[in-house]
Amino acid sequence: MLNHLRFYPPEIYPKLHKTLFFDNDVVVQKEFTGLWRIDLDGKVNGAVETCFGSFHRYAELGDVKSALNSIITGRACAAVVRYNGNMKPWLDIAMNQYKNLWTKCVDNDMEFVQTCNFGLQLNTTLAALLSRHTMKSCVRMFFLRYGLESFCGLSLSIGKSMAAPSKPTRIGLAGLAVMGQNLALNIAEKGFPISVYNRTTSKVDETVERAKKEGDLPLYGFHDPESFVQSIQKPRVIIMLVKAGAPVDQTIKTLSAYMEKGDCIIDGGNEWYENTERREKAMAELGLLYLGMGVSGGEEGARHGPSLMPGGSFEAYKYIEDILLKVAAQVPDSGPCVTFVGKGGSGNFVKMVHNGIEYGDMQLIAEAYDVLKSVGKLSNEELQNVFSEWNKGELLSFLIEITADIFGIKDDKGDGYLVDKVLDKTGMKGTGKWTVQQAADLSVAAPTIASSLDARFLSGLKEERVEAAKVFKAGGFGEILTDQVVDKNKLIDDVRQALYASKICSYAQGMNLIRAKSIEKGWDLKLGELARIWKGGCIIRAVFLDRIKKAYDRNPDLANLLVDPEFAKEIIERHSAWRRVVCLAINSGISTPGMSSSLAYFDTYRRERLPANLVQAQRDYFGAHTYERVDTEGSFHTEWFKIARELKN
Amino acid sequence: MLNHLRFYPPEIYPKLHKTLFFDNDVVVQKEFTGLWRIDLDGKVNGAVETCFGSFHRYAELGDVKSALNSIITGRACAAVVRYNGNMKPWLDIAMNQYKNLWTKCVDNDMEFVQTCNFGLQLNTTLAALLSRHTMKSCVRMFFLRYGLESFCGLSLSIGKSMAAPSKPTRIGLAGLAVMGQNLALNIAEKGFPISVYNRTTSKVDETVERAKKEGDLPLYGFHDPESFVQSIQKPRVIIMLVKAGAPVDQTIKTLSAYMEKGDCIIDGGNEWYENTERREKAMAELGLLYLGMGVSGGEEGARHGPSLMPGGSFEAYKYIEDILLKVAAQVPDSGPCVTFVGKGGSGNFVKMVHNGIEYGDMQLIAEAYDVLKSVGKLSNEELQNVFSEWNKGELLSFLIEITADIFGIKDDKGDGYLVDKVLDKTGMKGTGKWTVQQAADLSVAAPTIASSLDARFLSGLKEERVEAAKVFKAGGFGEILTDQVVDKNKLIDDVRQALYASKICSYAQGMNLIRAKSIEKGWDLKLGELARIWKGGCIIRAVFLDRIKKAYDRNPDLANLLVDPEFAKEIIERHSAWRRVVCLAINSGISTPGMSSSLAYFDTYRRERLPANLVQAQRDYFGAHTYERVDTEGSFHTEWFKIARELKN
Repeated sequence: MLNHLRFYPPEIYPKLHKTLFFDNDVVVQKEFTGLWRIDLDGKVNGAVETCFGSFHRYAELGDVKSALNSIITGRACAAVVRYNGNMKPWLDIAMNQYKNLWTKCVDNDMEFVQTCNFGLQLNTTLAALLSRHTMKSCVRMFFLRYGLESFCGLSLSIGKSMAAPSKPTRIGLAGLAVMGQNLALNIAEKGFPISVYNRTTSKVDETVERAKKEGDLPLYGFHDPESFVQSIQKPRVIIMLVKAGAPVDQTIKTLSAYMEKGDCIIDGGNEWYENTERREKAMAELGLLYLGMGVSGGEEGARHGPSLMPGGSFEAYKYIEDILLKVAAQVPDSGPCVTFVGKGGSGNFVKMVHNGIEYGDMQLIAEAYDVLKSVGKLSNEELQNVFSEWNKGELLSFLIEITADIFGIKDDKGDGYLVDKVLDKTGMKGTGKWTVQQAADLSVAAPTIASSLDARFLSGLKEERVEAAKVFKAGGFGEILTDQVVDKNKLIDDVRQALYASKICSYAQGMNLIRAKSIEKGWDLKLGELARIWKGGCIIRAVFLDRIKKAYDRNPDLANLLVDPEFAKEIIERHSAWRRVVCLAINSGISTPGMSSSLAYFDTYRRERLPANLVQAQRDYFGAHTYERVDTEGSFHTEWFKIARELKN
Repeated sequence: MLNHLRFYPPEIYPKLHKTLFFDNDVVVQKEFTGLWRIDLDGKVNGAVETCFGSFHRYAELGDVKSALNSIITGRACAAVVRYNGNMKPWLDIAMNQYKNLWTKCVDNDMEFVQTCNFGLQLNTTLAALLSRHTMKSCVRMFFLRYGLESFCGLSLSIGKSMAAPSKPTRIGLAGLAVMGQNLALNIAEKGFPISVYNRTTSKVDETVERAKKEGDLPLYGFHDPESFVQSIQKPRVIIMLVKAGAPVDQTIKTLSAYMEKGDCIIDGGNEWYENTERREKAMAELGLLYLGMGVSGGEEGARHGPSLMPGGSFEAYKYIEDILLKVAAQVPDSGPCVTFVGKGGSGNFVKMVHNGIEYGDMQLIAEAYDVLKSVGKLSNEELQNVFSEWNKGELLSFLIEITADIFGIKDDKGDGYLVDKVLDKTGMKGTGKWTVQQAADLSVAAPTIASSLDARFLSGLKEERVEAAKVFKAGGFGEILTDQVVDKNKLIDDVRQALYASKICSYAQGMNLIRAKSIEKGWDLKLGELARIWKGGCIIRAVFLDRIKKAYDRNPDLANLLVDPEFAKEIIERHSAWRRVVCLAINSGISTPGMSSSLAYFDTYRRERLPANLVQAQRDYFGAHTYERVDTEGSFHTEWFKIARELKN
């Protein structure tokens, strides 16, 4: 069967209209995009000479012919892909010389390349993917492989038939990767008939299968965008869950071609808020509505109740509010974890800061782990118990819970616990970086979040760190500088308090960042309401958020969470432990950048007088930037240099 | 005389070609840009009816007539301005209703609006400035006022005559604010005849006066751009020193109109590097060369020897290298503080990071001051002695020197020292923020620099801090938490070491940021050479930079300054003092964010194993982000949730 793979693309993807096929053992040795541009002039295929013998069979397939017809009409969009299996000897030899030819058209931004964890396989596989940028037309891509059905989760779906809805569905969802698939099933489960679509059609079939298995849910799959859009009741609402950036624009283009005035598209990805604002405007010109909706909760959250942060068109929000209220996580006494966040890109912005806070939480937990493990010498079993205990009190949260879980899991590939086998390199996506950059833009100090980003950057320099450790070990530095015996229970209690106090600082930063942006953009965001919708569903969900909500209930104009009477009291009770932990870490030579920058944030914010007077005096000295005075109004400049020179003479 | 103000604009600015005049007590009540668009069809003026009586006099002035001629030829560029004096009662009544009409054309990016501290006067004055964006042509602006000569430093210069050069000058300089004026005098002093120009012509006259006084220097002033450009020998080189952003574009437009192929413009401001790259491309299309040149050293540096960081066209650099080599600061055994930095916007980028490092240095010094003053109870006199002593050793630098100076200066408005009267609010411009944002973009940890930016942000929240201090004082927190007696001499010695060690971290971050960008952009920047040109002239000049230069001489590929053998040794010698100072500050409740984040940076970088494994395990748990292992290659995903659930049941 594998010998005939080249004949299947038209059947697997009946809507594909043009194909450039490289057999599995072809080595590209020169520019190949010219092949794509050949005008077939109505002919069914073209081939280079050596392949001619087999290619003529295409002509015998009626389906292909009618499909290829579309090239001439100009509506066509299609492509092919070349994929190599495991490394072959000749690849090894030729690789360096020709690699740039094979890989020149790989578009790393494309959903497929991302979904396939392509990067992970780069050492052992090569693929030349013809990107739509090269083609100057919309291009669908698929992967052929020796083990065809397993790669990229692609499965053959020839001849598979799907149930069609008897009447228009209530909503549509496009983009069926992990988040999309689960959110679609969630919506269907809540009783809203849903149409689903994905560019890789196997994902559609997979989702339809799951809907059947998980209770015959009213979910209907479509392999082409047109019939997908047509299947939805008007005004249509379609949620997109595709990778942020170009794939979103591409999906909008595909879908909006079939949509009508008053219809609405919702982007559920982690999109940069300005992209959403740009798109909202562009859509408005077409008479379409637009929402940028942050969705948090990972796979589990999407399936059983995420936290939803929709922003943009209020009209669009109202139209699907009934769905969102049921689909979102439900928190007793607090309601569904969804609210209309605000205008423009506010939904995306709030989700971005949510993720920044998530970075901070994870870093603080990692530091607590580090101190307990490195200084307190706690075993994984003890750590699991500590975090399980913590999860019953003020720290009760999703992240503390999963941390406890992690310490309990044994390595299935060897002795010991899995967490000790995980490499100390942390990956990241864009939202943490954006949060830090936005903080700088808005003149908001967010050192806890920034330190968590830096910690990820430095974790990535594993090889450099190994070398640095050698240099300093030679200078007498061990991994731990002191070998003092500590009272474990006291340490555990101190670390809990340090973690909690630092967390208050981190959330204070995030909240103030949101408020600063809200003022800049005129979004009028409600901080207490945001704390409420984060109480359930999302990654940072925690009992702690209820206290934040109450702080803003007490005073919606609270300048900083730190000065809320309840939080101030909690910090006063904990600050001694907090200082002990940070100093213990410093003296042990282990870094707690999140906890120490949080403490510095607190001690800076609560001080009436800072040494900033010296900095401003310096600025006036060398740059005539002027200064204000403590005792009178106005701007002043002093000729410091001149006076100092006179004093010296 | 004031009644006839409306007749002077053509004489003050003979090149102004079109004027829209609002008398001082006009209240704009509807859209007025239409007035500008009226085609005068060769007529000398137009006026609304009530003004007609006085406006006809324009026709009698020959100068105005010939000036207005140019409107018809299309070469014209001019504008007018409306200015109101102190708040009048009717302004108060009408303000809210009509304010948007008066201010709609105010272009806050314009040099004049900036120079005039316009913002400071907004409460008492109003002005409707017609921006060039509105006019769709280049527009000059000026301010008329009751006290005409004092506002904005504008002085009438009618009839003033200036010496003209007998032959073309070697170079031109446009933009005669503090930096431009001093750099022009510096160039002239080194024997290079220079033409100077400024939009506000009084600045030209002022510079010409200074050139006379400071030794009859070969400096020639021009009131109009055309004769300014024509006075320079070909190929012409003009240095601009105007505010970054729109004013640079404006100046380029003005000057390039008279320039010819092969001529060159150099931007000496703190410009965002991408703007320079955009402009270099645009200039290339006109056949002009372009350089973005960082200039550091403040007023004194510009006048007597700055550090110069030119990047862009190498051809342009070579043409003025002789000038730059003489104008730059001269460091014995090390040469002039200038080098061709690299292509594109590299000169601006390097200057930006220089400023980021400057932020870090200033913050670390402020923290040293804080610890010595708040914990060590040192008087200003003692502080002056300490910094003077420090300036004889490893910390010898411009910033330490001026810090010592500052502590010696008495308040001329009351008792005590001036530094204690300076308000603890630090201002800032864009470069520190950009540095932090670029670090995030390039995945480079720069916590010392980031903490200095945050410290400036928090210093600005003076009122919030005063309130926070009250809240925590009520909770039992004093300004200082402990009242321990410290050994002053020991403390001074510890703080010196902490400051020095932190400084190494800060420079390591800045240098790695430059390298990361250099790799991204293919600039091939030489870190050791950059350290060399920072040894003199600039704000961060220090003996310390020679050690950095030597570190890169020893190993140009040094991964991080921290692992250079000499620096590693210095840190090992100082780390105990460093830890003591940070812990002392923490226990005293004063914040040392720069020193503590530097220490955390060091302790993170030198550790082979970080707790990042836990963070990555969490990411794989909730987001299936996969992880690597310590013992084998590849990417792995574990069903943590499933396993944990099974373990619980």
